[in-house]
Amino acid sequence: MTQPEYTIATLGSHSALQILKGAWDERFRTLLVTTPERVGFYRRFPFIDEIVQVDTFREFPRLAGELRSRNAILVPHGSFVAYLGADGNRKLAVPYFGNKAVLDWEEDRRLQRTWLERAEIPVPAQWSWGDDVRFPVIVKTYGAAGGKGYFYAATPEDLAAGVETLGGQRFVIQEYVVGVSAYIHYFASPLTGTVEVMSVDRRYETNVDSLGRIPLAGQQRLPIDPSYVVVGNSPLVLRESLLPEAYAMGERVVAASRELIDGRGMFGPFCLETIVTPEQRFVAIEISARLVAGTNLFINGSPYSWLTYDEPMSSGRRIAREINQAIREGSLDRVLG
Amino acid sequence: MTQPEYTIATLGSHSALQILKGAWDERFRTLLVTTPERVGFYRRFPFIDEIVQVDTFREFPRLAGELRSRNAILVPHGSFVAYLGADGNRKLAVPYFGNKAVLDWEEDRRLQRTWLERAEIPVPAQWSWGDDVRFPVIVKTYGAAGGKGYFYAATPEDLAAGVETLGGQRFVIQEYVVGVSAYIHYFASPLTGTVEVMSVDRRYETNVDSLGRIPLAGQQRLPIDPSYVVVGNSPLVLRESLLPEAYAMGERVVAASRELIDGRGMFGPFCLETIVTPEQRFVAIEISARLVAGTNLFINGSPYSWLTYDEPMSSGRRIAREINQAIREGSLDRVLG
Amino acid sequence: MTQPEYTIATLGSHSALQILKGAWDERFRTLLVTTPERVGFYRRFPFIDEIVQVDTFREFPRLAGELRSRNAILVPHGSFVAYLGADGNRKLAVPYFGNKAVLDWEEDRRLQRTWLERAEIPVPAQWSWGDDVRFPVIVKTYGAAGGKGYFYAATPEDLAAGVETLGGQRFVIQEYVVGVSAYIHYFASPLTGTVEVMSVDRRYETNVDSLGRIPLAGQQRLPIDPSYVVVGNSPLVLRESLLPEAYAMGERVVAASRELIDGRGMFGPFCLETIVTPEQRFVAIEISARLVAGTNLFINGSPYSWLTYDEPMSSGRRIAREINQAIREGSLDRVLG
Amino acid sequence: MTQPEYTIATLGSHSALQILKGAWDERFRTLLVTTPERVGFYRRFPFIDEIVQVDTFREFPRLAGELRSRNAILVPHGSFVAYLGADGNRKLAVPYFGNKAVLDWEEDRRLQRTWLERAEIPVPAQWSWGDDVRFPVIVKTYGAAGGKGYFYAATPEDLAAGVETLGGQRFVIQEYVVGVSAYIHYFASPLTGTVEVMSVDRRYETNVDSLGRIPLAGQQRLPIDPSYVVVGNSPLVLRESLLPEAYAMGERVVAASRELIDGRGMFGPFCLETIVTPEQRFVAIEISARLVAGTNLFINGSPYSWLTYDEPMSSGRRIAREINQAIREGSLDRVLG
Amino acid sequence: MTQPEYTIATLGSHSALQILKGAWDERFRTLLVTTPERVGFYRRFPFIDEIVQVDTFREFPRLAGELRSRNAILVPHGSFVAYLGADGNRKLAVPYFGNKAVLDWEEDRRLQRTWLERAEIPVPAQWSWGDDVRFPVIVKTYGAAGGKGYFYAATPEDLAAGVETLGGQRFVIQEYVVGVSAYIHYFASPLTGTVEVMSVDRRYETNVDSLGRIPLAGQQRLPIDPSYVVVGNSPLVLRESLLPEAYAMGERVVAASRELIDGRGMFGPFCLETIVTPEQRFVAIEISARLVAGTNLFINGSPYSWLTYDEPMSSGRRIAREINQAIREGSLDRVLG
Amino acid sequence: MTQPEYTIATLGSHSALQILKGAWDERFRTLLVTTPERVGFYRRFPFIDEIVQVDTFREFPRLAGELRSRNAILVPHGSFVAYLGADGNRKLAVPYFGNKAVLDWEEDRRLQRTWLERAEIPVPAQWSWGDDVRFPVIVKTYGAAGGKGYFYAATPEDLAAGVETLGGQRFVIQEYVVGVSAYIHYFASPLTGTVEVMSVDRRYETNVDSLGRIPLAGQQRLPIDPSYVVVGNSPLVLRESLLPEAYAMGERVVAASRELIDGRGMFGPFCLETIVTPEQRFVAIEISARLVAGTNLFINGSPYSWLTYDEPMSSGRRIAREINQAIREGSLDRVLG
Repeated sequence: MTQPEYTIATLGSHSALQILKGAWDERFRTLLVTTPERVGFYRRFPFIDEIVQVDTFREFPRLAGELRSRNAILVPHGSFVAYLGADGNRKLAVPYFGNKAVLDWEEDRRLQRTWLERAEIPVPAQWSWGDDVRFPVIVKTYGAAGGKGYFYAATPEDLAAGVETLGGQRFVIQEYVVGVSAYIHYFASPLTGTVEVMSVDRRYETNVDSLGRIPLAGQQRLPIDPSYVVVGNSPLVLRESLLPEAYAMGERVVAASRELIDGRGMFGPFCLETIVTPEQRFVAIEISARLVAGTNLFINGSPYSWLTYDEPMSSGRRIAREINQAIREGSLDRVLG
Repeated sequence: MTQPEYTIATLGSHSALQILKGAWDERFRTLLVTTPERVGFYRRFPFIDEIVQVDTFREFPRLAGELRSRNAILVPHGSFVAYLGADGNRKLAVPYFGNKAVLDWEEDRRLQRTWLERAEIPVPAQWSWGDDVRFPVIVKTYGAAGGKGYFYAATPEDLAAGVETLGGQRFVIQEYVVGVSAYIHYFASPLTGTVEVMSVDRRYETNVDSLGRIPLAGQQRLPIDPSYVVVGNSPLVLRESLLPEAYAMGERVVAASRELIDGRGMFGPFCLETIVTPEQRFVAIEISARLVAGTNLFINGSPYSWLTYDEPMSSGRRIAREINQAIREGSLDRVLG
Repeated sequence: MTQPEYTIATLGSHSALQILKGAWDERFRTLLVTTPERVGFYRRFPFIDEIVQVDTFREFPRLAGELRSRNAILVPHGSFVAYLGADGNRKLAVPYFGNKAVLDWEEDRRLQRTWLERAEIPVPAQWSWGDDVRFPVIVKTYGAAGGKGYFYAATPEDLAAGVETLGGQRFVIQEYVVGVSAYIHYFASPLTGTVEVMSVDRRYETNVDSLGRIPLAGQQRLPIDPSYVVVGNSPLVLRESLLPEAYAMGERVVAASRELIDGRGMFGPFCLETIVTPEQRFVAIEISARLVAGTNLFINGSPYSWLTYDEPMSSGRRIAREINQAIREGSLDRVLG
Repeated sequence: MTQPEYTIATLGSHSALQILKGAWDERFRTLLVTTPERVGFYRRFPFIDEIVQVDTFREFPRLAGELRSRNAILVPHGSFVAYLGADGNRKLAVPYFGNKAVLDWEEDRRLQRTWLERAEIPVPAQWSWGDDVRFPVIVKTYGAAGGKGYFYAATPEDLAAGVETLGGQRFVIQEYVVGVSAYIHYFASPLTGTVEVMSVDRRYETNVDSLGRIPLAGQQRLPIDPSYVVVGNSPLVLRESLLPEAYAMGERVVAASRELIDGRGMFGPFCLETIVTPEQRFVAIEISARLVAGTNLFINGSPYSWLTYDEPMSSGRRIAREINQAIREGSLDRVLG
Repeated sequence: MTQPEYTIATLGSHSALQILKGAWDERFRTLLVTTPERVGFYRRFPFIDEIVQVDTFREFPRLAGELRSRNAILVPHGSFVAYLGADGNRKLAVPYFGNKAVLDWEEDRRLQRTWLERAEIPVPAQWSWGDDVRFPVIVKTYGAAGGKGYFYAATPEDLAAGVETLGGQRFVIQEYVVGVSAYIHYFASPLTGTVEVMSVDRRYETNVDSLGRIPLAGQQRLPIDPSYVVVGNSPLVLRESLLPEAYAMGERVVAASRELIDGRGMFGPFCLETIVTPEQRFVAIEISARLVAGTNLFINGSPYSWLTYDEPMSSGRRIAREINQAIREGSLDRVLG
Repeated sequence: MTQPEYTIATLGSHSALQILKGAWDERFRTLLVTTPERVGFYRRFPFIDEIVQVDTFREFPRLAGELRSRNAILVPHGSFVAYLGADGNRKLAVPYFGNKAVLDWEEDRRLQRTWLERAEIPVPAQWSWGDDVRFPVIVKTYGAAGGKGYFYAATPEDLAAGVETLGGQRFVIQEYVVGVSAYIHYFASPLTGTVEVMSVDRRYETNVDSLGRIPLAGQQRLPIDPSYVVVGNSPLVLRESLLPEAYAMGERVVAASRELIDGRGMFGPFCLETIVTPEQRFVAIEISARLVAGTNLFINGSPYSWLTYDEPMSSGRRIAREINQAIREGSLDRVLG
């Protein structure tokens, strides 16, 4: 008997379509775990070989045995932590693409800062409640996802008023870096040790991305509370003179992860969520140590992926290709967490 | 003698290039009807087999005989009503892709609301002049096209002042839903009964999309009247967790059309023009029952079409493919209005 | 011995990746000249056959002999003038794609206006210091690049205050045309005499493109100086009814260049940087007589290029294809400056 | 849970590479059963997912349970009867592509004649030992495979001498039709009811295909016994005016099988082994009711398959495509024997 | 109105599939004229847009008006003369690919010899009845098609006996050149003046290609009359050192046709039917001034066409491409006879 | 400066087109050295970048400096020895694909036998003049190329008569193995250590391949001397059950070359020229340690190459790919002789 067959599995949300289409293009069998109300939706896609239904995603860990029996490799995406908790992720008893040791560092804002600083990537100044703050600031509660629960403050009064509304949740006060955002999608190959820039997007956030369109006089007469809920993404390219630093940041953040986390460090897809200032300096707001939803724009490749690949290469497909290579080289353990 | 040959024809504007390129890719003969000053422009495109000149688009119905003699199938786009009137469309004596019975429902704002409500798709609240209005609102005259003739009002005073400028034109007062817009492009297949999401865009409107870039102080000192004239489009993807509802809305709106309009209902390309609120809820501003210009972004396919098709599939090409399938199956009447 | 082999060369910045990938796709040998800190970055790309290092780009002219010995053809991009000066460009003793006589006209704002006016393309009103100005205006220093050194003024007071900060640099005061921007990328073929629209983008500028997202109240309490530094680009399509004029403008500007500059006029890639007003009128802010960075979005083709070409056709590849055709036809001199 | 996954399985010989490559191209999982000395050979081919070893092919039926547990569908080829016996085939307790009821008719020379005659396909005259024979004849023992055990006789004396050498084996005496051979490969679709000509070959037989190259004088002085052992194949196309009859014969033979054998009749790949006479008449020597080795020439398609398919379509791939379609349509039982 | 649409038409036989598939691939509309019993056969092929039925091919000229009304261009093949007579061809009142003036030269064996000799291509010696003949010879009746009516003679006695059987038909006695045959397929472009070798085949003739397989003793005891009826073709490549002369012969024969026939000479597909002698010298047996059936092997291209084209290029497609180019260049008359 | 650019060079004959097309497809620069009368022929092919003319091939070694200055890598083919002599090959002072140490073994018939025997590949029995010979035999002079100078002998008298005609040239007397020929084309990768079967052909020899078509009676009355001059090739596939041994022979012959010749042994393309006997046993007549002309059939891939490669892979392209890989891995010396 020769090589067993592997199935790429993921949870039905976020970037599952991208992951499974990429897996299918690389000839894996594909499996999706999702909740009943989404089954009909995912059934439309012929590249999903099997759909397993769970009542809630929290039930997912109970499927471990079934998944292992199918030789499944789980590819996590940005909603895994939201659905399963970091802890839930850590305990998954199924082969898992990526290094789980990174989970602690990703979920803890302070560890994240340590990591970015070690990688010599500028980060916004940050204060605690009561510190002497330099305005404007943005206040983020712990565990806020998709931009919900953020607020902007231009003055001490704004800040105080906003904090009031948080009802005791933990939060950080961050320098509001004025500049445009750029979400840079990377892929770090554990097999070759290289880091690639796969694509770049900006988020499309409601309602904040609609405010500029409302006439000033109107806004003045009827103030609108801004919210930062991500509902989509739109594509970007960066000025070529910024790319060398974009690549270098990716490499530094991977190198730092090897020093700080464990010898394997972070690998697979990740994202630096940056603000580009008028001085053309990147400031990193956050690091996502897995596939972000902005990559969904590039199912058929991005301006960057087409420079390097002769075929459509999404980040999702890139993951599957890495797994494929690992299987061929007999070193699957090098890509599993 | 075997199968007659069909020609896909359209009017030279809006998304004519997309329609005819798609028809050409599906091996139809292509024909464009346009006005003299645009002939030179359309001649550049080798996929247009024939260009017929008319002095004004209003003359177009007189070509019916000539078009029928060429076995032409007319593919309407979003400017057909503007050029020919809904009535002009209804009377076209040429095979026509789509169900003309939908025209009444599309052009009448009240019928449209009825339709969307039947489909259980949230719509903005709406008032008549004199009603007790919840601000902000947007005021739209009947028959306004491409965003011309809209105005925003944050207060009763704004509203009154704006209405003054309308000089007696009919208008509706609509809740201004604060949120980001997403134009979702669908294709409903009359042959298979399925609905596909083809792509998503946001509009690029002058001058309102430039306002955010003007410094506040400047705007304050020199107020600028916002206008909403669409001059382009830019691409989007939606958060994957919003997609099941996006598909479901498409299906419901098609199902509702079968109940309300006639047994065939709406088919072919259509668009839901939505606002996504911070609660991640879609509110539909309008339904376009034909090809919208935002699909022009996806001549080479969209992130959604590449999930389903192995080749570049624009909405224009999708139409041609449906016609092709109908011809092969001998059921051309099922796609003609 | 038959045909010598040519190498496409450029400077490592701006759109060098696009140019060399396009050259590679057309089977040229490729060469990049760049500074030491970027060598590592450019080495990642397998389509760059050779990298020549210079300490600063100013040294570049000294490589002329070496480049000629490799049969190099230099493809300039939008950073050539910044790196070498217009004069430095003119003196380059290496075969150079494009007409150097255009350089004078491109760099001198007044000549540019003359050119655009001859081409009957609307331009913003323009005034000198002391003129009776119609507000709002934007003030641009001579030689400003990438949007740095611009300021916006809504009133005479703003203007006076801003001019103060310029410290005696030369500047122009330009009508601030309120409308959305559209950067239209063209290619003019010297061999066939045709002009093509390759793609359209809008710029992504820091910090001005982030302002709309900051709540009004916040901005009011803590004013932010707008800046216009381009750090990226995002894709657009234009309304089809605007395309005939977009093409016509391209043709007129090329025709005007033949009359004003020399018989060959401008050829190769160029860009009209326009504002589209609510009246759907293009106003040209500037003409770039070479490859602009917005084309970097379209490495795999644009919605416009896919209408015309059956393969991915970036502007960079289009240049290489023109050179290829010139070589085949034995008329390389017709594409060299 | 959605669709189970199927594995295409076959025995390692004859046209196994073609079958499994075709299955792989249609995205099936592939499995090969073979004997130890061939394992190394088949391991070279990356499209074989799994290799199961048996000491002799006779052991194969014992794998039935294991194959069923993998959802295997067995695709038989021309060596199945040789390896397993017709009876062995009939008893295989694994889903099997094709109609097993045809096996009786294929293996029994008399039933075969009945079948061909019912299909109104000319066959060589045939005699029993002792009949009044029209020379030349070819004598074939029952169960002879690959041309071994045939002999040619031009006179009664030759015949008698030859029969002597057979040592009592059963044989038939057949008219030796003087003409060129053409092996026509068909595919009959049980799902659509159509018959396609996939390709045509001639066999390459040792030593008979070398005799023409030996000088006559030499042959005269040193007679060589002809043998007809097939060791390869070479490609042919037929005169277009012969094709209508080639297709018609295929259809008639399928129709006859439905009348004679059972309602489903023969489907899948089959081959008519014909002699084309100087009168341009086909005489059928034999019918093979499964994949013949001559199709191995057309891994990348044949002149006939390229007329109909836009992609390389071997007979092996055609089988996999039919199975795929059956799975999609939920009618797998229609293609299984 | 812009360019009319053309239809490629031919008669249903010989290489009609190749011609119409090639026309389809070049996006022509396709039309086949054929007799009732073949309609079903040709209906299988989706690249045939229209089939017009005639009771016999002789009726074909009556369709001229109908064909002209469809803008048909007739592409003749090797059976046109057989079906319509050379005279029938000459009189066809439909646009016709090729130079009809060549017909006289092709059908008259003596003119053909003059032509080949003018092109300095070796031809077999030839004698009249009664001449002093050098054996072996082959005797061909005038107007023999497809090899029927030929006979071989090794001695004066054989010759006399054979001539007897001709019953007074006209014939030529030709040197039987001992060597292998090679049918070289050319395409001469009237637009570019170049000649290409498209492919090479050998014919498959019944019964002569089966004789080598019959044991010598058998043949001696039961002599078989050889016949030379072409029923198929098989592919060949020539030794590369023979190719320069193969190309040169093609060019000389075209050049000679310009001198002898008319200024346009022969263009389009043609074939030199050669014997290659042990001295590696080509001897031309015949020239076919149109598409020969051996090209049917190369529907998906030949080893020679793949050297030059990046896509499958049959001779049939090559014809369609030439017509396409002529249409685009507005010089259709240059390719029509 | 990064990687130098390499040029693949060869002599203009034999399989030069295949080699240079393959090199071009792998993006090498290509150079052909040929004699004046062939320059025009080779100029037709756009994949030949440069043609260098020599008066005779013997002059070729004088070009060594020029070739080295172009970074040329010479790819030898089957005519190199004929043109330059084995000794001339050995002395070529240009990087050379393949192991020159193999030349001695290839050119000396006795060493070749030793080699084949070491590889346990059956060879024909062989005798010297005067030995007790088992008929039939074939007599081959030393250094005979392309089949010229061979003769067949069925009896001692034939042999004696034939030897007479050789005029004292050295010769061997070989068992004439009665069976069909199969030329198996291999590629041995020095980088991966694997051996691939690329394709299989049979030769087309004049006049011997025409003899079978001449009626027996005619041949008897007018005997024709057989000759074995190769003028072309036609494609074959082997019975799948013969393939394992075909691969194994290839591996054994490579392994034997490592033991007998030097540690690197033979690599690159080679060919076993075999006879397949009625017992389905391969007997090797000869080994060619480089590209043979039969591979010219497979410019677009063979039935075997399409099993392994997703793109057209001729033997010529396979060579270029190996060189490419060696360059990328920095081990060019491993593929140069």
